[in-house]
Amino acid sequence: MHTKATEGVFVHPNALCESENVGGGTRVWAFAHVMHGARIGRYCNIGDHAFVEDGATIGDRVTLKNGVMVWNGITVEDDAFIGPGVVFTNDLHPRSPRMPEAAGRYAHVENWLTTTVVHRGASIGAGAVILCGVSIGRFAVIGAGAVVTHDVTDHRVAAGNPAEIIGWACRCGAPLSDALTCSVCRRRYRPAGDSLVLFE
Amino acid sequence: MHTKATEGVFVHPNALCESENVGGGTRVWAFAHVMHGARIGRYCNIGDHAFVEDGATIGDRVTLKNGVMVWNGITVEDDAFIGPGVVFTNDLHPRSPRMPEAAGRYAHVENWLTTTVVHRGASIGAGAVILCGVSIGRFAVIGAGAVVTHDVTDHRVAAGNPAEIIGWACRCGAPLSDALTCSVCRRRYRPAGDSLVLFE
Amino acid sequence: MHTKATEGVFVHPNALCESENVGGGTRVWAFAHVMHGARIGRYCNIGDHAFVEDGATIGDRVTLKNGVMVWNGITVEDDAFIGPGVVFTNDLHPRSPRMPEAAGRYAHVENWLTTTVVHRGASIGAGAVILCGVSIGRFAVIGAGAVVTHDVTDHRVAAGNPAEIIGWACRCGAPLSDALTCSVCRRRYRPAGDSLVLFE
Repeated sequence: MHTKATEGVFVHPNALCESENVGGGTRVWAFAHVMHGARIGRYCNIGDHAFVEDGATIGDRVTLKNGVMVWNGITVEDDAFIGPGVVFTNDLHPRSPRMPEAAGRYAHVENWLTTTVVHRGASIGAGAVILCGVSIGRFAVIGAGAVVTHDVTDHRVAAGNPAEIIGWACRCGAPLSDALTCSVCRRRYRPAGDSLVLFE
Repeated sequence: MHTKATEGVFVHPNALCESENVGGGTRVWAFAHVMHGARIGRYCNIGDHAFVEDGATIGDRVTLKNGVMVWNGITVEDDAFIGPGVVFTNDLHPRSPRMPEAAGRYAHVENWLTTTVVHRGASIGAGAVILCGVSIGRFAVIGAGAVVTHDVTDHRVAAGNPAEIIGWACRCGAPLSDALTCSVCRRRYRPAGDSLVLFE
Repeated sequence: MHTKATEGVFVHPNALCESENVGGGTRVWAFAHVMHGARIGRYCNIGDHAFVEDGATIGDRVTLKNGVMVWNGITVEDDAFIGPGVVFTNDLHPRSPRMPEAAGRYAHVENWLTTTVVHRGASIGAGAVILCGVSIGRFAVIGAGAVVTHDVTDHRVAAGNPAEIIGWACRCGAPLSDALTCSVCRRRYRPAGDSLVLFE
């Protein structure tokens, strides 16, 4: 087992953590694999069977539930929740790179790599698939099993295949009624362009 | 490797079985992880890369195909088939538990845990996603790739995203025509409320 | 670790490769499991957490991204790309084989096994689910998150749940406009029945 990680990182004896850029307080669970060159912040939870590739960037306090795959070109900001079995992508028109008809395209990463950002505090539900090139806004919520093909702005809830906007979410995760007051935590919001802002 | 399990349980040398509540005749395959506190019955088959969490309850003769994830709060009754890559959930409005705006909610499990039951003999197709809080009835069939957001009653077949009812299934798994006689095993049924009962 | 494989095969120290029918130049990555009896060609890439079962047949230069599951009865021809988290199936009406009401059906493999073929150069997007019994044509493209329930002919693009045909794809992977000329690689095609052929 390779368990090179910074002080204060817990790496399960059955995990592989090859990155030296993992912050203190982060835990990497059984059969997960964090590659050399992946960057992960502090106090994250990387579930069993998760995979974080060289070139992925993950903030602080992020939860990657079991089996999540995060590739080169994906940025997950602080406090995001990535549900079990969520799959990201980083190539809009993939072919096997060793197929003669496609090998030229894969000779240079800029020919095929398309990036994705999950912004602070967003949640992506179980089993969702995120096409590359999209932005998931702050505190947005992606429903379980959704297939996200377009940007989702801050605080929006999107679900379905392809995902469509179906409502608003509070910072705490609960859905917001049209009155934009959370029935769980009582935060109040007002519209601001495509997003919401808190009444302070 | 931790391989504490009761007599008569097969644990692959590359699996982790930390529970002492696994029944005889059950097999746990490579890279699967059964946590301490998970309960699994007799003669089950737990496929490669499956994950069974502390607090999950699984009956006898259940098949969990590869990569299935079963969490705290999920009950899978006897004889159920859970297809490859099926993902359960146990939180309707997940956020990263260490996000300051959500940490309070995660201080008490009753604030967020929502339970799910898969009843005796049901089948869940490959890659399906099951939202928490639902009941999957006896001998019901969930189509591959379905996203289940509502209860599915006994013997019903549901498919799509979100899943909708599309027919009836026999105990043997075959679809039933409107005549409610199975063309494969010849069992005959009659309607009984939301369900079917066998002509004995 | 079992690492019986032919000369020139790279097997990650945390992988299991039990097959002796793996071609030179193929790489098998961490936590992947290739069973005894699986056949894999040359210059393939078998990602982390992938599973290839006894009875699966995989050609040359195939990419199986992370977490892909390929069962007995599945054939993946040369140069195909199988995206991360793609799940195949091989039983149209699965039940737990040890359930008394279904055990008879599972006594003979011909009672339940349904085969699937992915033809040369096809791509299957991330998280797609492929029902058994279908044929995915040469250079066809299946969108991420699609649920494929019917055949997809050569060069066709299909997406959604259930998957529907939405366009044509070039050998290089790029979508083709109605003029059937690729804007990326400049290949030109003409219609030929359900498929396309190259202008030579």
